[in-house]
Amino acid sequence: MEYVKTISKWEMWEVALEGPIEGNPFMEQHIRGTFCGKYEKVTSDGFYDGEGKYRIRFMPSFTGKYSFILKCSFLEEEMTGDFWVKEAKLGNHGPVRVANVFHFAYEDKKPFYPVGTTCYVWHLQTDNLIQETLKQLKEAGFNKLRFCILPKHMYYNTREPRSYPYVGKPMDSSVLTDENIREYTGAIEGNKWDFTRFQPEYFKHIEKCLEALQELEMEADLIVMHPYDRWGFSSMTRKQDELYWNYIIARFSAYRNVWWALANEYDFMKAKTTEDWERYAELLCKKDPYNHLRSIHNAGSFYDHSRPWITHCSIQKQEIYKTAEYTDEWRKHYNKPVVLDEISYEGNLPYSWGNITGEEMVRRFWEAVCRGGYAGHGETFENPEEVLWWSHGGRLRGESWTRIKFLHKILSETPGYGLVPLSGGGECATAVSEMDKACGTLNYIIHYYSFLQPAWQKYDMDGNTKYQIEVIDTWNMTITDMGTYCGKFKIILPGKKYIAVRMKNVELDFGRGDD
Amino acid sequence: MEYVKTISKWEMWEVALEGPIEGNPFMEQHIRGTFCGKYEKVTSDGFYDGEGKYRIRFMPSFTGKYSFILKCSFLEEEMTGDFWVKEAKLGNHGPVRVANVFHFAYEDKKPFYPVGTTCYVWHLQTDNLIQETLKQLKEAGFNKLRFCILPKHMYYNTREPRSYPYVGKPMDSSVLTDENIREYTGAIEGNKWDFTRFQPEYFKHIEKCLEALQELEMEADLIVMHPYDRWGFSSMTRKQDELYWNYIIARFSAYRNVWWALANEYDFMKAKTTEDWERYAELLCKKDPYNHLRSIHNAGSFYDHSRPWITHCSIQKQEIYKTAEYTDEWRKHYNKPVVLDEISYEGNLPYSWGNITGEEMVRRFWEAVCRGGYAGHGETFENPEEVLWWSHGGRLRGESWTRIKFLHKILSETPGYGLVPLSGGGECATAVSEMDKACGTLNYIIHYYSFLQPAWQKYDMDGNTKYQIEVIDTWNMTITDMGTYCGKFKIILPGKKYIAVRMKNVELDFGRGDD
Repeated sequence: MEYVKTISKWEMWEVALEGPIEGNPFMEQHIRGTFCGKYEKVTSDGFYDGEGKYRIRFMPSFTGKYSFILKCSFLEEEMTGDFWVKEAKLGNHGPVRVANVFHFAYEDKKPFYPVGTTCYVWHLQTDNLIQETLKQLKEAGFNKLRFCILPKHMYYNTREPRSYPYVGKPMDSSVLTDENIREYTGAIEGNKWDFTRFQPEYFKHIEKCLEALQELEMEADLIVMHPYDRWGFSSMTRKQDELYWNYIIARFSAYRNVWWALANEYDFMKAKTTEDWERYAELLCKKDPYNHLRSIHNAGSFYDHSRPWITHCSIQKQEIYKTAEYTDEWRKHYNKPVVLDEISYEGNLPYSWGNITGEEMVRRFWEAVCRGGYAGHGETFENPEEVLWWSHGGRLRGESWTRIKFLHKILSETPGYGLVPLSGGGECATAVSEMDKACGTLNYIIHYYSFLQPAWQKYDMDGNTKYQIEVIDTWNMTITDMGTYCGKFKIILPGKKYIAVRMKNVELDFGRGDD
Repeated sequence: MEYVKTISKWEMWEVALEGPIEGNPFMEQHIRGTFCGKYEKVTSDGFYDGEGKYRIRFMPSFTGKYSFILKCSFLEEEMTGDFWVKEAKLGNHGPVRVANVFHFAYEDKKPFYPVGTTCYVWHLQTDNLIQETLKQLKEAGFNKLRFCILPKHMYYNTREPRSYPYVGKPMDSSVLTDENIREYTGAIEGNKWDFTRFQPEYFKHIEKCLEALQELEMEADLIVMHPYDRWGFSSMTRKQDELYWNYIIARFSAYRNVWWALANEYDFMKAKTTEDWERYAELLCKKDPYNHLRSIHNAGSFYDHSRPWITHCSIQKQEIYKTAEYTDEWRKHYNKPVVLDEISYEGNLPYSWGNITGEEMVRRFWEAVCRGGYAGHGETFENPEEVLWWSHGGRLRGESWTRIKFLHKILSETPGYGLVPLSGGGECATAVSEMDKACGTLNYIIHYYSFLQPAWQKYDMDGNTKYQIEVIDTWNMTITDMGTYCGKFKIILPGKKYIAVRMKNVELDFGRGDD
């Protein structure tokens, strides 16, 4: 039995055991641990990690002494031990939770304003490319990354992944042509997999990636299932799926930065039914002791986001022309945080999901946040190397990411957990801080004028509150102090697109910003 | 009795009579004429034109000899006479009619592709400004102008008009301030009008303007009623309204370029009911012998455009973010031509109806035409002289009008009367000519990519038809010939916004263009 005697709060703690190697340990053995501290008692399953190694993981949410008991199918006696949990390390704020109905915060209450991006299979690329992606992520300042656990097959995604999750052999991909790519979906002849035997190396590599993201203080929005498949991983049986779910829950749950996306474009997964999704959600709720965030992402029609197991709406826009403008409607409808994880990608593909401009991407981000939700970034620029950020990572080529970083700086200055739409649409998106909404006094207001270009605006504010007025050029990333005003006043604007006006009660301190 | 003995087809012919000046001739006298040619017999009312002059007007739709009979309340005997109608003059194609359900054509069958603009009260400005407007209209190449018969009161519209339609005295406008403008709507104290006595000079001036527009081959989309009023003209009684309707029908119907817009923002006219509108429509259908086009324009909710008297839907967009994208839906719903007469104005006002960019204006025009409808232009840029195109005319300051002129050139090359949406929305707006739709063969196709920026597109066309492919940069106004293709092929695009691709069957002649 190997384990460390001291870790810090919200770190992953692990105990490793030697056990049988014969037969199929994935199917025939099971181990379970119970972890007891002063303020919590957690039970979780372990997993077989190959070469006779079994592991159980745990993430403590409190400090102090913890004891544990392990039950293993291959040992008659229970194993016990204890360890100490110190205060969280600097930069470790715990898992992200829903805060005040529509927003997010780390478990230590530090607000989390998601600005995410998507690189579906960045982790299945070469080591060099993975390093380049991590470097670029660090520079870009995104704080959430959506990616798939399983390999991806699609246009621009025909190369073999670096390894496979199961023991076996993939189909011969040399049969793929530009024309027939679309035909290869789900279980295809030529694949030979043993769906009862995982390749632990595949998952160990993902864990390395989870840790690398932790280093960058990034959340990992793990897409557990997806339809872009030529290996049959999207059309396994219910039993095979459950084995997979149990395995990844046992392996990944103790990583604080994990979010569970049950599926990407769930409605494109023809082999799955609502009953399946509900079953996997049930399993997840039962087996993940830390209640990581849970969502399920659509292609066309939404999953019923009012289901209690869904912590937040992970939405793909359904229209070309009106997208983030629906944020406040969805917010009201589902009474949960709204994250528009896909609002088309900045790029130049021949598909409308992958060819919006950087300007339009940034506009959708601002619309989303000023309507009380959040948006997600992605990039799909063709290039000779066929390295597209959206799937492979690499380097960013577009114009939106720097502006999204700027928006995150603005968001970080919001008092409380986030912004709340004031008007519910209309002339322009107006947001106040959720604290203002609760207390009835407006201390922090943002008006966002989108593609409109007013030369001035009049405002009618509380005559007793003095506001500092700032004109924010969301594209050129400038903030211009216009002085202080109260009551009725007029502000001269630049008369161009993508302008926001921010009003801050001068008597309050909004200086927090990023930390 | 004065009249000319020879005119040409679709010109206004008039007979003038001397009659009583005492009492109230507008109320107490009436005259009526019946006009008989080989192919038509038309009866219409005349009107009192002041200073003892009475007039009856007529617009012949055929050539040859016409006879007439006049009955006047002040003469015991009928008056008769005859005159000759020659072929139409060059550039006179007759009134515009609905063509093939969704489109327009002049009575001589020449297609009319409306590209209109709005200058609500350009005709009530100084002579100099009117001349400047006409010069600018000529340069811009718009073919339809929307304007109000009655004076307009609103922000930027507080000056007195050059004259008034009724005998009397207006309220003292020096009481107006920036703050109270909105309070002055409809009948306000201080106005002293005799609603039974018109000022003929007011209407004669409008006729001069109608003639000036005819010179430019422009249609006059006359807004008969509107809510922006401080004189009480929007809240007259039913009887007063009917007198007004009868008077303008008698005066203006014989001008071939008249279209009737029953109201602008009818739903803002609180003093009027659906019963009123239906009554005025009935009166118009009965009294206008030429069946000029009839519409009624909304602010918020649409009038029921399926009413039989409505010849085409004159629509104001109801949303900020999605506007012309609804064109195909409305087209399908009403089965009539769709003209988006108001899709916000290019400008910099503090209101979202008056501050879109030139790019967005042009985008909305292209969306509208590629979805089988038409759009309308307008400009609202603030300036020290307070001369805003949208109300006063003057000179154009924006960037859209040159691109709209370019679009009209493209439209003029459409075979048949206009474009038909092929897909009903989706990835991009695709239009074919209405002749193609009817015959099932695609000879003329336009794909419009809006704000998307694909680097290429694949097309799967009929393998037996050879197409000339053109890439149209709708903003930079260039047309690039990409060569001829058939069957499946790929076209490299500029990878930027506002691109259209046009495909023309090389065996057909599309060289018509403007004439």
